[in-house]
Amino acid sequence: MVGIAEKEVAALQKRYRDDIHARLKQAMESYDTPFFDLLRYHLGWLEADGSPSAAETGKGLRPVLCLTACELAGGDWRSALPAAAGLELIHNFSLVHDDIQDQDDTRWGRATLWKVHGKSAAIAAGNAMRVIADRTVLALTESGVAPAMVADAEAQFIQRYLEMIEGQYLDMSFEQAEQVTVDQYLDMIGKKTGALIESAMYLGALVGTGDRDVAHGFGSCGRRLGLAFQIRDDYLGIWGDPAATGKPVGSDIRRKKKSLPIVHLFQQATSAERTSLDAAYAKDEIEGGDVQKVLAMLDAHDAPAYVQRSAESHAEAAVRDLDSLNLPADAKRKLEAMAEFFVTRSK
Amino acid sequence: MVGIAEKEVAALQKRYRDDIHARLKQAMESYDTPFFDLLRYHLGWLEADGSPSAAETGKGLRPVLCLTACELAGGDWRSALPAAAGLELIHNFSLVHDDIQDQDDTRWGRATLWKVHGKSAAIAAGNAMRVIADRTVLALTESGVAPAMVADAEAQFIQRYLEMIEGQYLDMSFEQAEQVTVDQYLDMIGKKTGALIESAMYLGALVGTGDRDVAHGFGSCGRRLGLAFQIRDDYLGIWGDPAATGKPVGSDIRRKKKSLPIVHLFQQATSAERTSLDAAYAKDEIEGGDVQKVLAMLDAHDAPAYVQRSAESHAEAAVRDLDSLNLPADAKRKLEAMAEFFVTRSK
Repeated sequence: MVGIAEKEVAALQKRYRDDIHARLKQAMESYDTPFFDLLRYHLGWLEADGSPSAAETGKGLRPVLCLTACELAGGDWRSALPAAAGLELIHNFSLVHDDIQDQDDTRWGRATLWKVHGKSAAIAAGNAMRVIADRTVLALTESGVAPAMVADAEAQFIQRYLEMIEGQYLDMSFEQAEQVTVDQYLDMIGKKTGALIESAMYLGALVGTGDRDVAHGFGSCGRRLGLAFQIRDDYLGIWGDPAATGKPVGSDIRRKKKSLPIVHLFQQATSAERTSLDAAYAKDEIEGGDVQKVLAMLDAHDAPAYVQRSAESHAEAAVRDLDSLNLPADAKRKLEAMAEFFVTRSK
Repeated sequence: MVGIAEKEVAALQKRYRDDIHARLKQAMESYDTPFFDLLRYHLGWLEADGSPSAAETGKGLRPVLCLTACELAGGDWRSALPAAAGLELIHNFSLVHDDIQDQDDTRWGRATLWKVHGKSAAIAAGNAMRVIADRTVLALTESGVAPAMVADAEAQFIQRYLEMIEGQYLDMSFEQAEQVTVDQYLDMIGKKTGALIESAMYLGALVGTGDRDVAHGFGSCGRRLGLAFQIRDDYLGIWGDPAATGKPVGSDIRRKKKSLPIVHLFQQATSAERTSLDAAYAKDEIEGGDVQKVLAMLDAHDAPAYVQRSAESHAEAAVRDLDSLNLPADAKRKLEAMAEFFVTRSK
């Protein structure tokens, strides 16, 4: 089953990839002062020395979901390309700033933008990326989308990425918090990860049908897919295969991320375990023996199974969200494959 | 004369102040999760501990110019309040990020946002401020402005603040540059400072008249006023009275800012002076005796008079930009007072 879902998603990615890339190039075309080369570096189009590059950068999931939603809803996916490109740009805006906030040195096997050009320049470049993202979504008018519908699309897009910004803040502030409840955690990842995937599917379906109710159905599905995606991410952040994820075992434990496994553990811990946990989390970074202790406690409380079940239940709810839309069987199958891929992927 | 211009501008500030403040409060109203208290701290509405505050924060020049332009163009200034509030918010977005980029500890006599909440949180708060700024400008529809005109206003607003973002980047990159020409300098401040003041007057006039040509005339005037404002700022950054500016003598020299006096000096320097300048600017920070040397060279090349004349010529050109619009004498006088204040202010 895993293999089939992966193949189906890979086929979707391949189907849209070149057109997404071309639309991104078009979005950046008119920005030709040296400042904008910083954005091109981040996007993998230029090397740090300004020479051309074709680096691999990200899975492009948001644009693929946008175009898929457009097509499954019965529209011409090409008309949603400005929205797809805008989503990829806003995602990259957040990555540029996230890398500064998290002090990450590398992304996609390359030095992060701030590592090459400094934090101040990278803040500005991220800000510019966000402006171009907005403008690219507004270019939906060029696909023949009615102005009022474009205004609706842009308003939804803005609302969702404001949630994303707040979600990133909450994620960071949770690292300092003593205790985080599952509800707080779900609210945070709904904002940090769910909101933009919601926007991707909402925009695709809106452009595809011009029907706000259908778009809301797809958006709701996207939000839940986002939860499933993030929870699987949390799973991989602790139990992922280092060879696939590129991160050491227990990576999220070391960084004191309040990911779902840890939130679950803090809630389930016995008072003896809690004392030991509090001691570990009082340190600036969790290392060596403490990582092993936390891993053992997670196992004792069946955290891997709990977390995986949680991801799957959100993926199932996502698929159910579309029941009322009476999609063709083929469309439904594609969505199910996407949902399955989200919770079975190994990187 | 100085006194009259200052009084006239103070009267305008007083006339609009309460309404601008009320519109800002309204713009922030629906953002009630704890994250948005960071924005309220920056705006001077909350103390760091969350208790209410009424701190003095900034001159509010951009909203005042927006409302003034609206009124002088013959419109009802109240209808431009969403634009005025949006301008103040976007200005504050840039201040929040600038303070991080420039590592400034205090602003308006208070700890900067990043100093209180950390850089990562302040980046996110700035990003959120920008979103609220956009939305506030879009609320012009509530003033009865036609949707197509609001779209035009928002497009111009976005274009100008993208320039502002690039200008901030250029300003920082000039600090590392060996030589900057006057043209490069003017391009940079046109973007960093001119663009948003252009937007302020464009939006005010557009809302006031619904006439894009009139708006462009006011916008062009604003751009030049912005140049005049920034050049006067450069003057004060070196020769301002520390008691008025709150900065030490030669402050911009110490920080190696490529402000107009320095750009002028590098262009005029004899080869002996240039050697001495290069030695001073090769250091991380310029201190003590080197500051005095640079100050002496600036005097030898009449830099104070050159810089002040430059500011005044841009202010005069700004006023001339409006000649073709045949404004009433009273309107013209108000603008002249504003222009004069920009180049004579002592802080």
